[in-house]
Amino acid sequence: MTAINLPAVLAEVEAVFAQYQQALVSNDVAVLDLLFWDSPHTLRYGAGENLYGYDAIREFRKARPAVNLEREITATSITTFDQHFAVTNVEFKRAGSDRIGRQSQTWVRMPEGWRVAAAHVSLMS
Amino acid sequence: MTAINLPAVLAEVEAVFAQYQQALVSNDVAVLDLLFWDSPHTLRYGAGENLYGYDAIREFRKARPAVNLEREITATSITTFDQHFAVTNVEFKRAGSDRIGRQSQTWVRMPEGWRVAAAHVSLMS
Repeated sequence: MTAINLPAVLAEVEAVFAQYQQALVSNDVAVLDLLFWDSPHTLRYGAGENLYGYDAIREFRKARPAVNLEREITATSITTFDQHFAVTNVEFKRAGSDRIGRQSQTWVRMPEGWRVAAAHVSLMS
Repeated sequence: MTAINLPAVLAEVEAVFAQYQQALVSNDVAVLDLLFWDSPHTLRYGAGENLYGYDAIREFRKARPAVNLEREITATSITTFDQHFAVTNVEFKRAGSDRIGRQSQTWVRMPEGWRVAAAHVSLMS
């Protein structure tokens, strides 16, 4: 039996996801780094790059210009599984663009807290 | 403690992932349908569409022309967490295109077997 969206687990993931979103638009790199799983297994497919391992993701963030990060979330889906796993998916638009962006994250509750183990960001064709 | 890539779990996920890949290139819709979680929470962001719920994904597959599904996998990353959760990520190229595709799937071991709960496919910008 897999328990879907247990209220206490869902509340935890919603809180950490909101923390991530706030850090993203304010380019709070320390929080973004904190919320990714510190592992060589962690990966992030971005709109224009494929990054393997926590260190590569951190280097990318450090080098990224902190402009035009603001975005409007137009759809949100969060699902949790038992006590330790979750997926968060959102659609978004950036100011000045009509293209639909999508952000998918898989979260795992590690001993140190909820962490993103895999992420995929893209613009719809 | 979260156990990463337990050999028995990894072998299971590798097998079901290979089954999915084979079904994809041969457009075996019955197997593709079987391997997605039958739930309104399931979602799939495709290169050109955002699909919410198992029924929407199934309808999309039924309507999709079964042409040019062949692809070459150029990078693969599979990570499992404890007994019930996994992420599979691949980069791929289609014949006649130089664009890099990415496919991300989050798998959950349900009572009925391993199922995709969330998927994201895109072409790198």
